Formats: sequence, C-alpha cells, structure tokens
Amino acid sequence: MAHQAEIIAVGTELLLGNIANTDAQYLSGELSSLGIGVYWHTVVGDNPRRLRDALAVARSRADLLIVTGGLGPTYDDLTKQVLCQAFGLPLELHEDILEGIRLFYRESLHREMPENNVSQAMLPVGCTVFPNAVGTAPGCGFEKDGVRVLMLPGPPFELKTMYRRCAEPYLRGLSREVIVSRDILCFGLGESSVEELLHDRMTEMENPTLATYAKSAEVRLRATARAASRKEAEAMLAPVEAEVRAALGSYVYGTDVSGLPEQCLRLLSGRQLTFATAESCTGGQIAAEFTALPGASAAYRGGVVSYWTSVKHDVLGVEQSLLDRYGAVSDPVARAMAQSARRITGADLAVSVTGVAGPDRDERGNPVGLVFVGLAAPENTFCRRLELGQRRRDRIRGVSVNHAFDMLRRYLTGIPVEEL
Amino acid sequence: MAHQAEIIAVGTELLLGNIANTDAQYLSGELSSLGIGVYWHTVVGDNPRRLRDALAVARSRADLLIVTGGLGPTYDDLTKQVLCQAFGLPLELHEDILEGIRLFYRESLHREMPENNVSQAMLPVGCTVFPNAVGTAPGCGFEKDGVRVLMLPGPPFELKTMYRRCAEPYLRGLSREVIVSRDILCFGLGESSVEELLHDRMTEMENPTLATYAKSAEVRLRATARAASRKEAEAMLAPVEAEVRAALGSYVYGTDVSGLPEQCLRLLSGRQLTFATAESCTGGQIAAEFTALPGASAAYRGGVVSYWTSVKHDVLGVEQSLLDRYGAVSDPVARAMAQSARRITGADLAVSVTGVAGPDRDERGNPVGLVFVGLAAPENTFCRRLELGQRRRDRIRGVSVNHAFDMLRRYLTGIPVEEL
Repeated sequence: MAHQAEIIAVGTELLLGNIANTDAQYLSGELSSLGIGVYWHTVVGDNPRRLRDALAVARSRADLLIVTGGLGPTYDDLTKQVLCQAFGLPLELHEDILEGIRLFYRESLHREMPENNVSQAMLPVGCTVFPNAVGTAPGCGFEKDGVRVLMLPGPPFELKTMYRRCAEPYLRGLSREVIVSRDILCFGLGESSVEELLHDRMTEMENPTLATYAKSAEVRLRATARAASRKEAEAMLAPVEAEVRAALGSYVYGTDVSGLPEQCLRLLSGRQLTFATAESCTGGQIAAEFTALPGASAAYRGGVVSYWTSVKHDVLGVEQSLLDRYGAVSDPVARAMAQSARRITGADLAVSVTGVAGPDRDERGNPVGLVFVGLAAPENTFCRRLELGQRRRDRIRGVSVNHAFDMLRRYLTGIPVEEL
Repeated sequence: MAHQAEIIAVGTELLLGNIANTDAQYLSGELSSLGIGVYWHTVVGDNPRRLRDALAVARSRADLLIVTGGLGPTYDDLTKQVLCQAFGLPLELHEDILEGIRLFYRESLHREMPENNVSQAMLPVGCTVFPNAVGTAPGCGFEKDGVRVLMLPGPPFELKTMYRRCAEPYLRGLSREVIVSRDILCFGLGESSVEELLHDRMTEMENPTLATYAKSAEVRLRATARAASRKEAEAMLAPVEAEVRAALGSYVYGTDVSGLPEQCLRLLSGRQLTFATAESCTGGQIAAEFTALPGASAAYRGGVVSYWTSVKHDVLGVEQSLLDRYGAVSDPVARAMAQSARRITGADLAVSVTGVAGPDRDERGNPVGLVFVGLAAPENTFCRRLELGQRRRDRIRGVSVNHAFDMLRRYLTGIPVEEL
C-alpha cells in the first residue's frame, strides 16, 4: 500500500487559534507507523464552499483523505453533507446507530437525545461505519473514484478511540503487509543524546525503522517492522530492541507501556507493594497521574498535598524544627515528607516533591526550578536535587513528577535510585 | 483591507507527527486580533515540487500568505528558493544581515559561522527584512502581483519574537479593522441545550458572531465583533454578553477566564479566603488543576488524597463508624471528608469527592459513575450526588472535579450550591 495521504481538519476554532491541530499530529504519527505517507495537512473553517474547494484540491493530489471534525449535531457541523455532495453519495439513516446515540444519551448523559442529533446517524450509502464508543458522532470510511476517504470526529479522545478501534483495522485491511510497532521508553536522556547514541542504527535502517518522539524529559523510541506475518515482524523487532537496550542501559524503563506511572503500577502490583505521596510544588499531580490508571487502587494508598508549610507540619507531621532550619524547599524536608507519608498511610514506599515551580522565587530566595524529590523505603531514604532552570511552571511540575516515578521504578528494579 | 490569509508551514517533522503545528495556532490567534481572517492552514514537507504546488493553490485563493519554517541553512531548508522562483524575484545578499549572523555565532554560540549559513543572508529583492533577534534565519515580507507574502522561521520562540518585533508592526500598517472576542463560560448545561436556548440569536448573527465550544461538561461561548476600533467592537459585544447571561442565568460562571479553577482563584483571592481538598476517586486532580495556576498558593492550603478507606480515617480523621455504616462512597462520608479537610488544614472552605470512577463497581456494589461532591463552609456543609453513568474513568473524574469547583464558585457568589 503506497498511499499519498492528506489530513483535512474542519473547524473554525483552529483558524482562530483556539486550539492546535493535535488531531493531525496524532494521525500523522499513526499513519507513518502503518507505512502510509502523509504529504499534506489542510485546515478549513466551518464553511461549505471552502471545504468543497479544499476537497477538490485534495482529490487532485492525494488518494487517501482523512477528514476530522465537523461531525457534531449542530448547524455548523457540515463535513458529512459537503463530502457526500462532493463524492456524489446520498446520506442514509442508520437505525442501529441512531439507537446507539439514544442509548448513549439515556445511559451516559441521563437525558433524552435532542432531535437534532438524528443527523448524526445519517451516513454515506455503502460506507463502513465506525461507531463512536465514547461520544455520539459516528465516523466512516468509503472508496469512490479511486480515492479512499475516512471521516473521524474532532474531539481528540473520540478521534483516538475511534482510530484505534475502527480506522486502524480498516486501514490495515487495505494492505497485505503486516506492520508491527514496538515502543521503547526511556527517561533521563535528551532526544539528541538518544539520537547520538543510536545514530548509525537510525540512519541506516529501512525495515525495521526506528524513530524518536520526545515529551516531558521522556523519549519514546518506536521500532516498526513490515513483514508478511506478525510473527515475522516481531522476530525482526527483537534484535532492534536488544540493541537499543544495550546502547541506553538503565535509561530504558519499559516497552509498550503508556508511561512511567503505568510502569510503576506494573512493578508495584507484581510485588503487591503500595506507595503514598507527599506533594508540595507538584500539587497533587503525582497522585492524579497515577490514579488516572485503572487498577491504581491496588498500589496507591493516598497522600497529602502539603502546599502550605503549615500543612507539612500539621497534616504530614514533618518536624517544625526541620522546616525552620532548612526551609520547606530542601533535601532534609523532602526526605522527611516521604518518610511521614509512608508512616501515616502505612504504605511500603512513599515519594515526595518540594520545590519552586515559579513564576517567582520562594520566600527564602530559592530560584525557580530548584526541586527536591524524595523516596522513602523501609531500609533507606533517597533524594534527588533538580535544577530545572527558568522553564515554565507546568514544565517544571511535569518533569518533577516524572523524576518521582523514575526513582520509584529504579528502586523497584534494584538499580541505583538517585543517579540520573 | 479585508485580507484572506493562508498559513503555510513547511517541515517534514510536522507530517511525521513529531510536533504539532503550534506556529499556525499562534499566528491564527494573532492575525484574528488584527482583524485579518485566516481561512486556511496548509502543511507540506521539505519537498520543492509539493511546496511549489501548495503555493500555487494558496495564491489562487488567498491574498496574504504567511510561510513558516524551512529557513535554516541546511540542504532541506528550501522555502526561500522555492518562493522566489514562484514569485519571480531574485535573491540578493544582505551584507548587514550576514554580519549579524556572524556576530550571533561568535557572541551567542561561541563559535565561527559555518559557511553554509551565508545562504541565510540571501533575501528576495525589494523585500522588507525582519532581523532575527534570537536565532540566525532572518524573515521578510514583500508584495507581488496583489499577494502579500511573509516568511518567518519555524522554531516557535524565533517565530513569536520575530512576529512581535517585525511582522505585527508590518501587518498593522495594512489593516483598518479590529476584531475583538469575548469568551463567556458556563457549566452544567450541554452544548446542544445551550444552542437550543440561544438558537435564534446564533443563526441570525453575522457581526458580532456567537459560537460554542464544548469541553468536560463545560461550554464556552465566544462572541466576536469586527469594527473600526476596539471601543466600537466592545460596545457591540456588551449586549450579546447581556443576552447570553439572561438566557443562561447562573450557569454562566465567568467571562474571559481559562476555566472554573481560575474563576475560583479570582473569587477566593478577592475575599482573601483559602480552601482545602479531600479527594478519593479524583485522586488529587482538583489539587493538581488548581495549583497549575500561578498564584494558587494564596488561596489553596493543601489537602489529602484519601484513596484507601484507611487513609480517610487515619489521615483525614473521618469517623470509622461513619465509614462502616454508610460506606466510603456516600453522602455522609463526602460531607465528613470536606469538614475534616477544613479542620486539619485550617482553611476557610474545603471540597471533597468520593465516588466510583470505574472500570468496576466498588466493594459495596455501588455503580460506576456514582459520585458525591462535598463542600464544607463555616456555617454549613453541602453535598451533590452525581450519577455520571458508564463514562470512561477520566471523564468521570474530570466532570467530578468541575462539580467541586462549581460548588465552590456558587458558594462564593451567593447562589444555591447544591443545584445543578
């Protein structure tokens, strides 16, 4: 399959700058990993004439069009109508989809479906329907005049869910080849260091390929193999993974896992251990990220968000003398916070964060980006001192959260905890 | 002048999904605020033929082209060459720009300029030069055959700096209209209910316009006016806002605010009040969302993530008899959690959440989506019971978090707290 794909996003909110086109980013990465080349992104507003013209341009240069957005029930959601006109396909009502939307309203939203949602159950004649498991607007795929067209909803979670459940299998079905990807995740090395360490490997490979994606001080390496069977593709990936692990060592924390929190959940569950949190500048984000995972309650007991110094003493039980002597942002207080969280919750382990997320220095004059991350274990307590510099608040918090999880996973896998 | 603008981003990394097109988002917002309508975004890779074709399409429909990226010194940076060919303008060397690049290398990068950077000092004959204060590649603006063209560098910080210093003043000189937008935020009504309530108003309006955007049980209404001056545009928006407020009543929680947490921060700061949190199924997300705001520490003291029932008793201090009798997911426990959080942190107010986020029922057989949200105030304690149904975990958590903030803002503005 050597498609030339164009992604067309429909939505005035993109042209006003309210949101970035992250749907196109997501789909581009996914299509690339299927071996489909994406050559154009286009954004047009909720305007029938301009959408029609953009479709004409796209059909003249691409043979796979992925159209996102504009599938809602409201008057300005016009993607389907314009596409069906452009491709000469009438819309027909899908009773089962309509029933599904009614049910979604009743059971998930606890109210009756407004009548204008009926239009969402109208789809082009002869298409493959992509039901929406997490919203109301269905998507679909069809082929007409040598052009393959997919329509997907705009809200990112609906788009991703529908892509994984329906659109990806649909696209895979068009090809005879099997494409298998494996994600190798690492923390603590920058993207350019990873690329330097793997440079020869990355440039010379055509199948499997190896690509890097960076996010919040993490690097994700995606190895992708094309072969006649899944088994054959997996056999091609095994030596690539081994080579990456050899080059990056303990920076690699897992494969095919969503991130450090999930890797920690796996490690904790495997040993039936629990942990707790004591958070100052990260303000509950470690707890929130971990408990976003289904099954988190087996491994996470709870914790304290000790934002004010008084809460560090009154609720966590950190000694006042320690706070007075070293200040809230210090190595001894980070250690004491982790020890206290462990004690008051009865957890096996506890992590803590105290630091200056900005925008200003703290009252002791500590600079923005100075952060201490602690880990209390039965036999020892550890602390990392981070100097994250003048980054944005959310970036300082995000990186600090990842350091806490990194210390936890290093402890649980028996490698040095405080090293970076 | 009523420009029709197209933003063309050049870069294969965008088509591989490595990065999102945040340059287009930034420029779209900025151009809108200048009264310039952005009607298309296009992304093409570092490929001369496809860039040439995309320019031909753009010239046929737009009269203002903003081209970002592809201005670097390497072989795949070809924006300038292709543009100059397309518009029939030769490139000429700008000695002063070349001197600036040499200086930037010496003083900021501490090395000599490589010779291939000379190409960066070549610009189209007769253009307005935009020097790059934070990098090497200069940008420029020119007009040819009725089309205005701006070239800007791709790295976001360089783009923003050059836009503010050079491109915006250049564009202001071209436009006579201003566009002003106002966001009106509401919580507790679905997008289609909002549209039903405002239907006549929304369809008949051309200037100002009124559009809706939905997110996590919130609806954002954006009113936008075009006029000769900001003052005139604001005068056009005032009656629209009044009408929306009249139609939606206390569901409207604020204007021009990022969300419920920020609205709560404003209300709390205005009265010098503080609050605390006690979170079970939301797992720290209320705390994390609030502390993501700069200045949160003035209004938020801290809280407890009481994920395990034992932590509700041992750390928060909820009476064991209450937990035994009603179970952790219950109205009395939600109230007791809020009261306890208030007591142990010394805050004026406290919010609490306890519920079943799924994927499974809890050990007492309570269904997924059953959530109790509490608010403890000096004179009274409130509780909302939510049945959020079979939604996904993060959606149940997100909506619950917003209910907690909604109760807080209702309390602080003196309207009934438990109503929806």
